[in-house]
Amino acid sequence: MSVTVADIEAARRTIAGQVLRTPMLPAPKLSALTGAEVHVKYENLQVTNSFKDRGALNKLASLDAGARERGVIAMSAGNHAQAVAYHAARLSIPATIVMPVTTPFVKVEATEAHGAEIVLEGESVAEAQVRAETIARERGLTFVHPYDDPLVIAGQGTIALEMLEDVPDLDTLVVPIGGGGLIAGNAIAARARKPQIEIIGAEAALYPSFWNALRGEHRPLGGATLAEGIAVKNVGALTLPIVRALVSDIILVDEVHLERAVNAYLTLQKTMAEGAGAAGLAAMLAEPGKFRGRTVGLVLCGGNIDPRILASIMVRELEREDRIVSFRLTIPDRPGVLGQIATRLGELGANILEVEHRRLFLDVPAKGVKLDVTVETRDAMHGEEVFQALEAEGYQPAWIDTATTME
Amino acid sequence: MSVTVADIEAARRTIAGQVLRTPMLPAPKLSALTGAEVHVKYENLQVTNSFKDRGALNKLASLDAGARERGVIAMSAGNHAQAVAYHAARLSIPATIVMPVTTPFVKVEATEAHGAEIVLEGESVAEAQVRAETIARERGLTFVHPYDDPLVIAGQGTIALEMLEDVPDLDTLVVPIGGGGLIAGNAIAARARKPQIEIIGAEAALYPSFWNALRGEHRPLGGATLAEGIAVKNVGALTLPIVRALVSDIILVDEVHLERAVNAYLTLQKTMAEGAGAAGLAAMLAEPGKFRGRTVGLVLCGGNIDPRILASIMVRELEREDRIVSFRLTIPDRPGVLGQIATRLGELGANILEVEHRRLFLDVPAKGVKLDVTVETRDAMHGEEVFQALEAEGYQPAWIDTATTME
Repeated sequence: MSVTVADIEAARRTIAGQVLRTPMLPAPKLSALTGAEVHVKYENLQVTNSFKDRGALNKLASLDAGARERGVIAMSAGNHAQAVAYHAARLSIPATIVMPVTTPFVKVEATEAHGAEIVLEGESVAEAQVRAETIARERGLTFVHPYDDPLVIAGQGTIALEMLEDVPDLDTLVVPIGGGGLIAGNAIAARARKPQIEIIGAEAALYPSFWNALRGEHRPLGGATLAEGIAVKNVGALTLPIVRALVSDIILVDEVHLERAVNAYLTLQKTMAEGAGAAGLAAMLAEPGKFRGRTVGLVLCGGNIDPRILASIMVRELEREDRIVSFRLTIPDRPGVLGQIATRLGELGANILEVEHRRLFLDVPAKGVKLDVTVETRDAMHGEEVFQALEAEGYQPAWIDTATTME
Repeated sequence: MSVTVADIEAARRTIAGQVLRTPMLPAPKLSALTGAEVHVKYENLQVTNSFKDRGALNKLASLDAGARERGVIAMSAGNHAQAVAYHAARLSIPATIVMPVTTPFVKVEATEAHGAEIVLEGESVAEAQVRAETIARERGLTFVHPYDDPLVIAGQGTIALEMLEDVPDLDTLVVPIGGGGLIAGNAIAARARKPQIEIIGAEAALYPSFWNALRGEHRPLGGATLAEGIAVKNVGALTLPIVRALVSDIILVDEVHLERAVNAYLTLQKTMAEGAGAAGLAAMLAEPGKFRGRTVGLVLCGGNIDPRILASIMVRELEREDRIVSFRLTIPDRPGVLGQIATRLGELGANILEVEHRRLFLDVPAKGVKLDVTVETRDAMHGEEVFQALEAEGYQPAWIDTATTME
């Protein structure tokens, strides 16, 4: 294999004091949720809020004076971009980051803030990659690959060394898998320290590239995923053989489980995980039977999620738990009716969030109106009570289902 | 004084292994934001997600067999309730928690989930307090005060011991102040270890009880605050003299700064702080001049915030940064116009979030319509560009100000 545990131990010495030795903490609420004993490694607390700091720094630190002076280049729309830009700036190495033109402005800005030169080019990641390689050749820059580089893999592997130092009892690691750098490094480190430990990969169901490669399947790749950090279409040439040798299983996680895992980290662990960062927990939620009774280490590998998406996930989860429910009422179109309904809802302990009059439906008389009411309730049973009370008062309530449809 | 550093050291031995030794981490992004060198103590990662675990356990562990058998009682609508319930259950001590009838259901449920008996009584905290004292007398239960108890104060003080062990260079601690238990314990511990360290209290501007007591002022107390965890009207009899002797300054934090601090913890540090938990950072944002150049330890003392409120804070902050802006346009009421506008907004790079037709305004002709459009932009300048483009096309845009009004 291209990387050994000695390389990872060397990486650990190289990056010591320059990246955070992140906390590894027991998560009793996630344990209660999953039936396993769960410990979380908070890589989202790194300076650029993902594990990418480790591999990027290990690679940059390996460069000789000439290479440092010429500079480095990377292609990424996400966490790798920020990690390379941040540590290059710290080491006074000029950095160029090629990003697809579709990259959200906030990510461009975050990378630029670290002083990197940004090249926005290519409609896709693949096109941007070609452009980055061209620039690297033209300008003599060192290309910093996001995962298919022994030094990057070794850097990421330092996580498992810390996890097993803090919790020697771990019998299972669940690690998100995109290009495979994170899981490859950690599988090498963990299996070297504890040969019987099981390593399980959590891959986005929309991007089953390792699943396909390992099983010889050809499931389609693509689509909008919450876990854009592991939405990778090509497995690494270096990472695939490592994963094949050391990873015992891959669990495909769908969007609903990713969303629930992000929400669980937030509401139960009070920490912000991006979709890819929550993929390990999503795998446990998707297949709880595989983990029950085990001592599991989860790598919460990144926390860079758009606040607007996070806000929407939280509200949708409340809807899913029937703590936010919507009814469509049919009411006479005259003054005072809304007041009566609002008063009644107040008496029932339901907190009104939204009210909308709908006058254009043809199934009500011209003097009638439909009223869509969204209320916050204590739980599903309370929602049912509110529904029945409205029915008893003749408002003909109908449920509006906000929970089962994905936007 | 009623508590000594020896009491706090004893508390530390008592609670060791039963509450988390929480992480204390550098926060470079908060440092960049404030101009100080900021380190954060993540008490929101405790099992019940606040520092209250420490004092509650220290008190419970002190009880003799008879008192344990009779049980304990506490009055709290918040974090103290959960901490007492959780640790009492762990130690097999029956716990009764009195909560005001106005307590949100989710908090009642969280406390009940730890196996405590819940008594919902009293319109206010004061009424619930009276009820709790009555039950304590009647049933011979030990009353666990949320702050005015030497063992509780000593338990909370263990935080500062850990902070100074991890970062001996700290010259300033900023600690939220409600009833004063947290700051009293930590002031004793920190000043004992490092006499020249400065302790600053962060108190909600709507509840300036310590401010009033220390300065002989009579500012009004009351109102809805995001920091309900420190919305306390009465200073502690034990805590006041400690605060008077050891705390050098109190900063009053208003709702806007509390909200921004919660948002900064979330977006920059990827961690969830409740309003009271973010009060220390809010104080730094409110009076940055006081902290510039210092090495500051922030106690992020709790993370129990309603997800719906958190979601709303995130969205409001985007509005405040002018990354979400709203225009009211005047357009002719005929097919295709919305399509033209939507296409134009797309060309301008503005992402449409909401569109609402308003037909009932009298200042438009009967065949005209007002259209309220909310879009996401890159920043304030981009919003301005979009506005000017819509103006140039004759849609008569007017800004709808969502940012400056507090809901």
